[in-house]
Amino acid sequence: MEIYYGNIAYSKSKTELVCHKNSYIVVDNGKVISIFDKLPVEYQKYQIIDYKDSIIIPAFSDLHVHAPQYPNRGIAMDELLYDWLNKYTFPLESKYKDPIFAKEVYEKFIEDLLRHGTMHASIYATIHNEATDILINLLEEKGIRSFVGKVNMDKDSPDYLIEDTLESIKNTEIFIKKHQNNLYAKPIITPRFAPTCSFELLKKLGELGKKYNCGTQTHIVESLWEREEAKKCYPGCTSDMRIYERADLINKPFIAGHFIFPSEEDIEILKKYDGYAVQCPNATVNVIAGIMRTGYLLDNDINLSYGSDISAGEYLGIYRGISDSIRLSKIKSFYENDDRSITFKEAFYIATKKSGEIFGNVGSFEEGYEFDALVINNMSDSFIDLSIEEMLERFCYLGETKDITHRYLRGKEIII
Amino acid sequence: MEIYYGNIAYSKSKTELVCHKNSYIVVDNGKVISIFDKLPVEYQKYQIIDYKDSIIIPAFSDLHVHAPQYPNRGIAMDELLYDWLNKYTFPLESKYKDPIFAKEVYEKFIEDLLRHGTMHASIYATIHNEATDILINLLEEKGIRSFVGKVNMDKDSPDYLIEDTLESIKNTEIFIKKHQNNLYAKPIITPRFAPTCSFELLKKLGELGKKYNCGTQTHIVESLWEREEAKKCYPGCTSDMRIYERADLINKPFIAGHFIFPSEEDIEILKKYDGYAVQCPNATVNVIAGIMRTGYLLDNDINLSYGSDISAGEYLGIYRGISDSIRLSKIKSFYENDDRSITFKEAFYIATKKSGEIFGNVGSFEEGYEFDALVINNMSDSFIDLSIEEMLERFCYLGETKDITHRYLRGKEIII
Repeated sequence: MEIYYGNIAYSKSKTELVCHKNSYIVVDNGKVISIFDKLPVEYQKYQIIDYKDSIIIPAFSDLHVHAPQYPNRGIAMDELLYDWLNKYTFPLESKYKDPIFAKEVYEKFIEDLLRHGTMHASIYATIHNEATDILINLLEEKGIRSFVGKVNMDKDSPDYLIEDTLESIKNTEIFIKKHQNNLYAKPIITPRFAPTCSFELLKKLGELGKKYNCGTQTHIVESLWEREEAKKCYPGCTSDMRIYERADLINKPFIAGHFIFPSEEDIEILKKYDGYAVQCPNATVNVIAGIMRTGYLLDNDINLSYGSDISAGEYLGIYRGISDSIRLSKIKSFYENDDRSITFKEAFYIATKKSGEIFGNVGSFEEGYEFDALVINNMSDSFIDLSIEEMLERFCYLGETKDITHRYLRGKEIII
Repeated sequence: MEIYYGNIAYSKSKTELVCHKNSYIVVDNGKVISIFDKLPVEYQKYQIIDYKDSIIIPAFSDLHVHAPQYPNRGIAMDELLYDWLNKYTFPLESKYKDPIFAKEVYEKFIEDLLRHGTMHASIYATIHNEATDILINLLEEKGIRSFVGKVNMDKDSPDYLIEDTLESIKNTEIFIKKHQNNLYAKPIITPRFAPTCSFELLKKLGELGKKYNCGTQTHIVESLWEREEAKKCYPGCTSDMRIYERADLINKPFIAGHFIFPSEEDIEILKKYDGYAVQCPNATVNVIAGIMRTGYLLDNDINLSYGSDISAGEYLGIYRGISDSIRLSKIKSFYENDDRSITFKEAFYIATKKSGEIFGNVGSFEEGYEFDALVINNMSDSFIDLSIEEMLERFCYLGETKDITHRYLRGKEIII
């Protein structure tokens, strides 16, 4: 039994941010029991970890991140998509045939992920099995709830980063079988996106998904180019989502990266299968792809989540994604009439409870949720009193890694 | 004579970023003498301060920042402009009738400005003389090259934050006379914006500008509302800039905050008087005002600069403004056909040399420039080699205050 004292905040729903000033959160065996303004007698015998005027919040989830692209974060950001992919991203991904390079990067990536307060993630690796094994094993050892995908790409890819169709399927099955019984880091089927995958590949991956009860992550309508190219590659399909439905590849969870230009059909199919759309706020702008209709999708009860999308995105902290997402919703509603701006409460909910639910009971402090938590500096100045919500908002707008002072994973402090 | 060793970078023009790997910068009496790849014999007797693989760059300039709004940075960011002004900004500004409050805030503000690597700034205070004296005196004592304005507003302002016209003029003259012989922190005439200033006020301020050789800063076409409101208040004027021209209030330097929706006439008048347009990248999006045509203005040889615009903007670091500005230019060119995206080289030039020139020879390391400099962490990982430009780009995309390890003002290290 552990008891933590401080200013406690978490989301209950998209309209409810629950804030407890100067309160106690009681955790048993890594799970939240309850929050008290005044500690009941029966708990007074336990030691209290006193975080004074700090804020205690649930850890963040990142639902779209390319771990192998970590070495390129924050560079070549003024390149256009084509050059960015061919001069930077694909050549870097091809280096992961070398397991020593992979291990060095993936260790640093995970450490930095935790430093930024992210404790759950859905991650793209590369086409290489050995390197992807290294990544998933590191996450499993650390007990990080995550999905990890060996990437599939068997067409329209560079010579040095392409697979034979049957080889790709075989290697995916080997990867899934090896890790299907993991407790924390689970395999997920990861076709890069429709334009780089043959229908034969997608169909066979669908069969693997059914056989091993394994979800799918991919990029869906991430740019106008991708949306049109996907339809061109799959003439019978009227939308990007239809391709995956036809391949019978929409297994749970289904994670649709970007989802910027969905047709009503895309939205309908995503909703039908209870899939998640992931906004990667600065990534999509860095590569000039456009802006997701976050307000519209929220109002239509689509599952929304955030991703850092390293290295199209540059910053691992999902808290900065919150403020970027609010800003983008304002731009979107300024330039187009198809959306509204979103609130801080909504964005914080998306980043914690909503994105977290895909991993189980994480991302909130309701009873029974795992205590995956961050202790954040108070963020106040001496000359003005902030509410807990304002402190939290300030953290999401101008916070830095130094402002995350402690990190807990299922009630155990992580030292990085 | 001081000699610093490291990776040295500075802008020479909007297309030239000069990078010297493993080099020496020789500084005499606070001014740059030269940069050498190999140290000439005559300098070898001096002590070398070795910053190893760090990057040494010119300090940043912030050309639009409201110091009194510092306590509200990063809160109420999902409010709309009207509520943001009336519930947060105006009530806070009214507190500066209290000099004790003012001193406490302004000391912290300046410390935080320096922490974020900004060493030159053009600053709005409030309508209050005593508080504005405190701000300008603090800056002068620290030797920070800056412009400071006592704000003028004599109409359409809240009861608790408005001046009588003659009082406003009298107090402005008192402020200017008191500080006109300052070495570093100089007065600048600061009408808030046209809708809150009578023509009588603007004209008399114009006379003061001529009498004391004092520049002007204000908000120009910062939103569609402001643009139309200004023209409504001044029926004879066909543009926002025309109002200031007619009041004979365009003295050097003229600093036009935001400049988001200029007509060709606005651009023409700004150019005629060699004025500066200031983009405040995230501020304008937080209050849904729109996006400046940075590429277009650059190509038309308008003087461009950056501002943090605390607290419509949330973050003091101009380096983050660089990446936000590039992103905004991409969005702008995606949604509208009136602009192009800008490059990292251009944005870094705007943030350093171009914004700096308003304060004298600062913002570059060419011969004779003042050594106002930042030492920045190398930003590389062990597994990939970055060029100096890439290190710098990464810093501007994901750098944090912890990455600024040392700060120099005219060759003297500042400890904060």
